Amino acid sequence: MSSQKSSLMSIERVLIDGQWRVSSGSQVFQSINPATRAPLPREYPVSDWAEVERAILAAAQVSRELQNAPGERFASFLERFAERIDARAGEFIATANQETGLPVEPRLKIAELPRTTNQLRQAAAAARDGGWSLPTIDTKNNIRSRLAAIGPVVVFGPNNFPFAFNSAAGGDFAAAVAAGNPVIAKGHSSHPSTTRLFAEEAFEAVRESGLPPAFVQLIYRTSHADGCRLVSHPSIGASGYTGARETGLVLKEAADRAGKPIYLELSSINPICVLPGAVAERSDELAAEFTTSCLMGTGQFCTNPGLVLLLASSQTESFMSAVRAKFEGAPIGTMLSAGVLRNFESGIQSLIAAGAEVLTGGQAGGGSGFSYRNTLLKVSGDKFLLSPHALQTEAFGNSSLFVIAKDEAQMLAILAELEGNLTGAIYSAKDGQDDALYSRIEPVLRVRVGRLINDKMPTGVAVSPAMNHGGPFPATGHPGFTAVGIPASMRRFSMLQCYDSVRQHRLPPELQDKNPRPGLWRSIDGQCSQADLG
Amino acid sequence: MSSQKSSLMSIERVLIDGQWRVSSGSQVFQSINPATRAPLPREYPVSDWAEVERAILAAAQVSRELQNAPGERFASFLERFAERIDARAGEFIATANQETGLPVEPRLKIAELPRTTNQLRQAAAAARDGGWSLPTIDTKNNIRSRLAAIGPVVVFGPNNFPFAFNSAAGGDFAAAVAAGNPVIAKGHSSHPSTTRLFAEEAFEAVRESGLPPAFVQLIYRTSHADGCRLVSHPSIGASGYTGARETGLVLKEAADRAGKPIYLELSSINPICVLPGAVAERSDELAAEFTTSCLMGTGQFCTNPGLVLLLASSQTESFMSAVRAKFEGAPIGTMLSAGVLRNFESGIQSLIAAGAEVLTGGQAGGGSGFSYRNTLLKVSGDKFLLSPHALQTEAFGNSSLFVIAKDEAQMLAILAELEGNLTGAIYSAKDGQDDALYSRIEPVLRVRVGRLINDKMPTGVAVSPAMNHGGPFPATGHPGFTAVGIPASMRRFSMLQCYDSVRQHRLPPELQDKNPRPGLWRSIDGQCSQADLG
Repeated sequence: MSSQKSSLMSIERVLIDGQWRVSSGSQVFQSINPATRAPLPREYPVSDWAEVERAILAAAQVSRELQNAPGERFASFLERFAERIDARAGEFIATANQETGLPVEPRLKIAELPRTTNQLRQAAAAARDGGWSLPTIDTKNNIRSRLAAIGPVVVFGPNNFPFAFNSAAGGDFAAAVAAGNPVIAKGHSSHPSTTRLFAEEAFEAVRESGLPPAFVQLIYRTSHADGCRLVSHPSIGASGYTGARETGLVLKEAADRAGKPIYLELSSINPICVLPGAVAERSDELAAEFTTSCLMGTGQFCTNPGLVLLLASSQTESFMSAVRAKFEGAPIGTMLSAGVLRNFESGIQSLIAAGAEVLTGGQAGGGSGFSYRNTLLKVSGDKFLLSPHALQTEAFGNSSLFVIAKDEAQMLAILAELEGNLTGAIYSAKDGQDDALYSRIEPVLRVRVGRLINDKMPTGVAVSPAMNHGGPFPATGHPGFTAVGIPASMRRFSMLQCYDSVRQHRLPPELQDKNPRPGLWRSIDGQCSQADLG
Repeated sequence: MSSQKSSLMSIERVLIDGQWRVSSGSQVFQSINPATRAPLPREYPVSDWAEVERAILAAAQVSRELQNAPGERFASFLERFAERIDARAGEFIATANQETGLPVEPRLKIAELPRTTNQLRQAAAAARDGGWSLPTIDTKNNIRSRLAAIGPVVVFGPNNFPFAFNSAAGGDFAAAVAAGNPVIAKGHSSHPSTTRLFAEEAFEAVRESGLPPAFVQLIYRTSHADGCRLVSHPSIGASGYTGARETGLVLKEAADRAGKPIYLELSSINPICVLPGAVAERSDELAAEFTTSCLMGTGQFCTNPGLVLLLASSQTESFMSAVRAKFEGAPIGTMLSAGVLRNFESGIQSLIAAGAEVLTGGQAGGGSGFSYRNTLLKVSGDKFLLSPHALQTEAFGNSSLFVIAKDEAQMLAILAELEGNLTGAIYSAKDGQDDALYSRIEPVLRVRVGRLINDKMPTGVAVSPAMNHGGPFPATGHPGFTAVGIPASMRRFSMLQCYDSVRQHRLPPELQDKNPRPGLWRSIDGQCSQADLG
């Protein structure tokens, strides 16, 4: 929702080239409080190409200035930024709650804000350590290599994590910065004030830590065409995008054509297979666990369990009844925006049109503001196999689809039709009775998901060095990268730099004979080592 | 050059789905001996889509069968394959010499064939060790991850390395196989017989090592449209392409749209900066070194030094004269094909049209078969800066362009116009007198090349774990990956697989508590370790 600029006075400024500036764009927009459907008072600008380009050129200059900067400089910034966020926590939480309808507790205050500052601190530690860059030395040939900053990174944040994936503070931001890159944040239009607060604190932290003032920049919105020009600009190093599949694929096409890496997190229905022994053993426990996971955040998680695969049986029927009762008894949350509600309704309708039957819900309303009843759908394996594509439509919200296979062979056939997903979970009996079936379905699911889970719901993505928050297309654009987990997520925003016979004093410290830090792991002639050379 | 099939008898077979089969394609082609310009006797088929698709489906089945295969199986195959190549070395060398015009000695016999079998053996060792997959364990969260096979890999080999980059035996082949993937080799049309020999030996090694018979498949040629369908097919894991930029970008577009990784090695002019102190210090030595590098293999190397940046001076003039004399005195080699000669002539003409002046050469002929005189071109820095794009046209062959900067500032301005390249070299005085200038130009060159070299020519790409044979677009499609160097090159053909709370006995051996091999390095809670857990 945007309109012509009317008064300059009330319009928020963009952060470009080291200053909060009046935007030269002619359009403005407002965010909406999803719990009241009322527009929030502040007006935000839609940037025009001139100011987007100014941001790009400023970031390119910063990249050049920081080319040989030690990780310590980025670490200090990230830590100072985290401290400043903590100091203003109350305002962050209140603002995000207004803009997203996400509950203050536990979600924003206990879970998401601490996670966000924790990510920034983990990224700081990784930047300081330097091991993320995989320093590799071949003494025989005197060839040495490491990963290094790729250049200015554009981060497009999603609507559903106003803190932890915020374009100016979240996972991609932290990873890009820790790898040594300036960031141009493109805020999500649904929570511009939250993003502005982050950019304010980031900018102050930039100043306090002595980085070039244009190290962090913020624009709130651009036209789609300018978004494409941005990700494909010759001076951009790479982009990170988390959001809807359609927009992401438009950006991907532009970036790909220009040979610019773009990392996408697009959509995922996160299949859950509940094997018969698990249903028999702990149906009530599973019903509770599933309901909590599926309705958490009103289902607006990229790892929300959107498809549950079960074998037909009377126990499966009881399990579904138990889940239905819980869905009907659970409070109905507020959705993030009118657009999310609209897409959710349309997703549910697509599933119904493809043959799914409504077990409960299936109607808008029931909660505050933008809301939709907690919804369960069901479809037979036979029907699923007739329309496997349509029945994998992502309905991003508080719903899930039960797929009931008539036998194990059909379960396997259904799994073989799954698109790439971020996660896949298998619940099995504790006593091993499902192990034979597990070993048949695991290989089929394994190659279709980034993270394979046992006996646990996919929501809750630990910031772990072993995490993969990624997966095969169309969940992401490349199955080799993760958006969560340090240091792996940092490597997305880097280039491989090799030094062949380069004189010792000209090498970056990590590649010199003397190990610059006692704890730094390097690969020397194929062996991990913390030692000096020679 | 292709024509309608005339007789079935003489047409070579394709290797598809575990058998040497009569092709169902209706077109055939022959290779040409570039030293005599005479067509070679054997006829090779252009595959139609039906047989390409059969290959894809067979490879997909093999991928499923081998999903949990230990690295040892691929290692045994690679070693057996290398032994078989060695045993048939004479025939390989004679055939490649006929098809490419590359000299038997030292090139094919002493350099390229041993390099090829060495690559296969290095890949075998890496597959056996397993460290390439970066096993990573987070004990606190019980999350574990590693890289694993991505699925069937299509390899498009180039014309200029009939052995070391052969689609059925070269670097991409070895990397894809060692990562656990079946390969569909798309041979280069200029040396089908060489490729057939490799596929024959690979197929026998597949049988001897007990891998599924469709593990290695070979097609010789397809239409461009079928090539695009191949790299974007849902059952393909990834592709590797080495060759001309134009064709590579067409394949890239198709693969990108389908979300399928494609690794490209496209073109590179490999700038060399010779700083004034080096010219003063060792002009003759440099002239000899440069001439050898530039004319080696008739200049048909992806790392051929195609642009030499110098500061204007009388010493630079003498250096150029010395190089010119050497170029004129050197034998004129045979080019790989009529097409290579045609593109080379057109590249030289583009450089001339953009303002370059011919110092020597500039005319076809002078050697056996397809040949062109050893050619040196020169352009002023002023002119270069007027047409920086046209003056970076790759002339793939025995030529180079001297760019003469009038001062240091112009040298920097020229470097800042360079496109992405595989390599960049800087020659400087041994006594340190060039160090101030070095430190100004190094950052500009560093971010534009994959491998930065001191006092050495870029030709000669060591198979080293620290190598980067890659670089920013348009040299490749992504600056984070290398096509040469094990294990890094293997990681291109893998997906990141995370195991979250997966029961111990269901984990791949590399991620179980007990380290499956004494020498295997794993990252455990951020520390490199060869120990067991718990």
